[in-house]
Amino acid sequence: MAFPKKKLQGLVAATITPMTENGEINFSVIGQYVDYLVKEQGVKNIFVNGTTGEGLSLSVSERRQVAEEWVTKGKDKLDQVIIHVGALSLKESQELAQHAAEIGADGIAVIAPFFLKPWTKDILINFLKEVAAAAPALPFYYYHIPALTGVKIRAEELLDGILDKIPTFQGLKFSDTDLLDFGQCVDQNRQQQFAFLFGVDEQLLSALVMGATGAVGSTYNYLGKKTNQMLEAFEQKDFSLALNYQFCIQRFINFVVKLGFGVSQTKAIMTLVSGIPMGPPRLPLQKASREFTDSAEAKLKSLDFLSFTDLKDGNLEAGS
Amino acid sequence: MAFPKKKLQGLVAATITPMTENGEINFSVIGQYVDYLVKEQGVKNIFVNGTTGEGLSLSVSERRQVAEEWVTKGKDKLDQVIIHVGALSLKESQELAQHAAEIGADGIAVIAPFFLKPWTKDILINFLKEVAAAAPALPFYYYHIPALTGVKIRAEELLDGILDKIPTFQGLKFSDTDLLDFGQCVDQNRQQQFAFLFGVDEQLLSALVMGATGAVGSTYNYLGKKTNQMLEAFEQKDFSLALNYQFCIQRFINFVVKLGFGVSQTKAIMTLVSGIPMGPPRLPLQKASREFTDSAEAKLKSLDFLSFTDLKDGNLEAGS
Amino acid sequence: MAFPKKKLQGLVAATITPMTENGEINFSVIGQYVDYLVKEQGVKNIFVNGTTGEGLSLSVSERRQVAEEWVTKGKDKLDQVIIHVGALSLKESQELAQHAAEIGADGIAVIAPFFLKPWTKDILINFLKEVAAAAPALPFYYYHIPALTGVKIRAEELLDGILDKIPTFQGLKFSDTDLLDFGQCVDQNRQQQFAFLFGVDEQLLSALVMGATGAVGSTYNYLGKKTNQMLEAFEQKDFSLALNYQFCIQRFINFVVKLGFGVSQTKAIMTLVSGIPMGPPRLPLQKASREFTDSAEAKLKSLDFLSFTDLKDGNLEAGS
Amino acid sequence: MAFPKKKLQGLVAATITPMTENGEINFSVIGQYVDYLVKEQGVKNIFVNGTTGEGLSLSVSERRQVAEEWVTKGKDKLDQVIIHVGALSLKESQELAQHAAEIGADGIAVIAPFFLKPWTKDILINFLKEVAAAAPALPFYYYHIPALTGVKIRAEELLDGILDKIPTFQGLKFSDTDLLDFGQCVDQNRQQQFAFLFGVDEQLLSALVMGATGAVGSTYNYLGKKTNQMLEAFEQKDFSLALNYQFCIQRFINFVVKLGFGVSQTKAIMTLVSGIPMGPPRLPLQKASREFTDSAEAKLKSLDFLSFTDLKDGNLEAGS
Repeated sequence: MAFPKKKLQGLVAATITPMTENGEINFSVIGQYVDYLVKEQGVKNIFVNGTTGEGLSLSVSERRQVAEEWVTKGKDKLDQVIIHVGALSLKESQELAQHAAEIGADGIAVIAPFFLKPWTKDILINFLKEVAAAAPALPFYYYHIPALTGVKIRAEELLDGILDKIPTFQGLKFSDTDLLDFGQCVDQNRQQQFAFLFGVDEQLLSALVMGATGAVGSTYNYLGKKTNQMLEAFEQKDFSLALNYQFCIQRFINFVVKLGFGVSQTKAIMTLVSGIPMGPPRLPLQKASREFTDSAEAKLKSLDFLSFTDLKDGNLEAGS
Repeated sequence: MAFPKKKLQGLVAATITPMTENGEINFSVIGQYVDYLVKEQGVKNIFVNGTTGEGLSLSVSERRQVAEEWVTKGKDKLDQVIIHVGALSLKESQELAQHAAEIGADGIAVIAPFFLKPWTKDILINFLKEVAAAAPALPFYYYHIPALTGVKIRAEELLDGILDKIPTFQGLKFSDTDLLDFGQCVDQNRQQQFAFLFGVDEQLLSALVMGATGAVGSTYNYLGKKTNQMLEAFEQKDFSLALNYQFCIQRFINFVVKLGFGVSQTKAIMTLVSGIPMGPPRLPLQKASREFTDSAEAKLKSLDFLSFTDLKDGNLEAGS
Repeated sequence: MAFPKKKLQGLVAATITPMTENGEINFSVIGQYVDYLVKEQGVKNIFVNGTTGEGLSLSVSERRQVAEEWVTKGKDKLDQVIIHVGALSLKESQELAQHAAEIGADGIAVIAPFFLKPWTKDILINFLKEVAAAAPALPFYYYHIPALTGVKIRAEELLDGILDKIPTFQGLKFSDTDLLDFGQCVDQNRQQQFAFLFGVDEQLLSALVMGATGAVGSTYNYLGKKTNQMLEAFEQKDFSLALNYQFCIQRFINFVVKLGFGVSQTKAIMTLVSGIPMGPPRLPLQKASREFTDSAEAKLKSLDFLSFTDLKDGNLEAGS
Repeated sequence: MAFPKKKLQGLVAATITPMTENGEINFSVIGQYVDYLVKEQGVKNIFVNGTTGEGLSLSVSERRQVAEEWVTKGKDKLDQVIIHVGALSLKESQELAQHAAEIGADGIAVIAPFFLKPWTKDILINFLKEVAAAAPALPFYYYHIPALTGVKIRAEELLDGILDKIPTFQGLKFSDTDLLDFGQCVDQNRQQQFAFLFGVDEQLLSALVMGATGAVGSTYNYLGKKTNQMLEAFEQKDFSLALNYQFCIQRFINFVVKLGFGVSQTKAIMTLVSGIPMGPPRLPLQKASREFTDSAEAKLKSLDFLSFTDLKDGNLEAGS
């Protein structure tokens, strides 16, 4: 099977699902969104229908439509479109995986099921394998997010021998701060050429030094450019400069975390920064408050993160 | 709207979803299952597609079929069929609620969405209200299970003023050991005639004394008769006898809890006790081990819980 | 060794440690406190230097002095004085146990050490045994409070075979809502005549029906009389009346829990109700706010819990 | 006040408290222990009576003796001796702080009290301030370990304005994987010259890149040399080599973590590697099993971590 011409690396934006004021999906802005990511943020890979995209709050049918729209609009513009196909129901996960292959996505990602939880690593692998088997032509990525799922199987143990069970396995999105586990995933699989994508944006630098080959996150939607500058400094071994960028990004994230920061707030910030209307979130989330949005805007300005957009005009200007 | 002739009370069995060896749903035994519950266990109310029924592991389409089969087979035999229609996706929950009304179920129950969690009681009520609105002819029950959902909104606070928002609200399934919260739900709503159904089978007596009007649980599938004896003793104020029954039940549950007791083990025990093949569970669960099943069987015998079934014959005999 | 003439049963007030405004222990009011408990609350057993008494915030030397003062002032007035001698350091626990025996206390209680936690039940029993051995003449009680200690060893498992290791073992203070565990402690030890004291005041009735023989808690300092009325109704099998008392008590506790309720707030309420100055708490606690105290007072009045004290006069009047 | 001539930086070994077979403190080997750390591990700073030293399992009197022995034996050999003086009781903490100053230690460290927990940052600072005030001549370090204490006050918030309250504040031991919090501690205090010591040995490299100026941990007792090699490579910007060292160390820690790794196991490993008898732990811990010790030894050998000691001879040889 011809696997992706390019290994998945660098920044991957976890896409937001734009919605209209009455909570329906707003497909009409996805084209602009693609252009914005590529031109203004320098981000050319996306992770669709994940946590940031409220994937599990959408119906299976909606997830299919959203996936198609991103693949269609991303054609010849984006490098890779990865579809998160995880679900509590195995059959639904398989349906979404098969669909992702049919529409020509570049890979699928699956979270550990988390209501009735797998008791052992082998059971979890069996579940993941069944999903992977529904899309044998696509690279498979495991989405490790123990704080949200409560599934306490270490990623490093899961990866042990995984190619025997899931030959399409190509890497993981590691959304946790346990860098012993992450480091051992890298260390034990160095010859495999897996993608080790880190999912905790606010401390990406700490994972880069531990061997991360890329990152998936919500902040790359609007801080992609700044983060790419950090990646560049890191690759050029200018670690002092890289740390300055990391601190810069941390000042913003630390600020919003203390106000209460979730998917709703991400949508509000993205609307602010990109000028593209992301709309409100779907229940059970509530739209970000006016105070939050104003505070976040003030903070972004004070940190000079808005230099490449002109909010007053509603135009998107390339920044330095 | 004509609400149920009988308020939902007494025991409600959280039904298991029988499966074939290859994991497909085994609709063919549901008729027997209904007869078994009514005749052998004296249980005439059921809660379909809940945790015990692996509801969230099934596809929406499967949940619809399962709901229909129980309503059909339960006609003129069961008192009430309550369908759990909760889901992470609001639209899917609404679809299931509407379907439950169409097929003539007696009520719907909804769990708090738990991946992206509601941040406040008002948001949670908004979510529940949207589901209730899809089945305005049916009584609505809230399924409170904080240990599994991680949603820390107290039931007593949720109930405060809920009739204004959800006029079809009829009660709750309370699956937690916080009897201050449970007690205050009862205390603050005494004139409402709500159903206060307790969901922690192993300590039902402790909730009966706090005003529980019934119970929903997996053990009523195979310990319904024994539990009904406890309820009777309680109603006749023979609390010493009621406690003896409770301890008897606890000895079994305590035993299996220490071996590891989940939905898989419930399926194995039910197969054992009823003689009806429940089959294996769906991934991400794994079939109960041989050692578990043998140990559980030995314990049931030592506690004399199998006197009303004759396993060797495969027949179901009424017991004393 | 002659064990207590009376088994420890009924209500046991977890005593507060009165302090002066500058945080030193106020021994001078302990005599009044004893008289208040006996005459106004009808409570004649106390549990000294527990959580409510800020025991672990005091130095070993202070704990000794406090224990002595309660034993001295309680002589011929109180039935039993139990000293909590638990500590993170085994030697300090042993010193306090030995001291309790020397001053003629009626029993010692020990919490599971909780910073470095025991990994198994056997290790925990070894620790407890070493403390018990320092006071071989005194009844030994285990203080089970998993939510605070994080030690997940079930009480029912601990009790299994404990008399072989700790012959002075006489019962437990069970501060948790897991009534399967509590029930099985009672069920498995019925012939032993242990004291099964429940430690979650707000749902005491639920434990009474499961076989609790008494209760230890902070609310018995100021709601002892009301709770004794509940115990009496329960013993006379008037469960409807008992439930009314329980709900009455719950309305108050539920109210203060929602405002934030800890040892500081308990001190403020006790000062209010008894008229005896309990003073502020020791760091790391902060005195209850004025708003809290005013709200609590208003609630107590609205629930008619202050009918037996006349706050305006500062006198303590017996109530009905 | 003349503060330490050298800022506390680089590696700090969290010392083990050696014990005899019957659990008493074995002061006689502390002299050897100092020499071993300096000569074989190249570690010249120590952190006494912390978690690794079972500090909270010792009596106050024992903690004083242990502190004195380390200061005495470390004179003219060690650079800095920091005494952990944290306790649940403020008075005991103050006594230990004062004692540390009297014996000429180089600094004190304090953990947040964790049974009755401080509700706000200001209360926590008040507590810490009271301890610092008992040793005004000594640098004060905060020991941040939220996973063990359950105190959820972020270190970055605590540091905000701390010099106004605690003028002797000199830095923190950060034992957590939240590198947003850690990074912001560094970022917000760059001009202060605080010591930012990282406490999660297995991922030290990830904290070095975020600005850590040193580390405190149990592994530096026996992996100090190897870790110093990693620090050197990091300082010389050979990040590839630094990562190789980190992975090497991780392979060992990952291995023992999966077998169950706590203070008891640390004692066994140190005995093995150093040849100095550390003895068993104090209750509530249990001596490491024979299987653990054998497995750990085999793993250390396979990773070539024992090249600088000759266990068979019982001699300590300097390695490369």
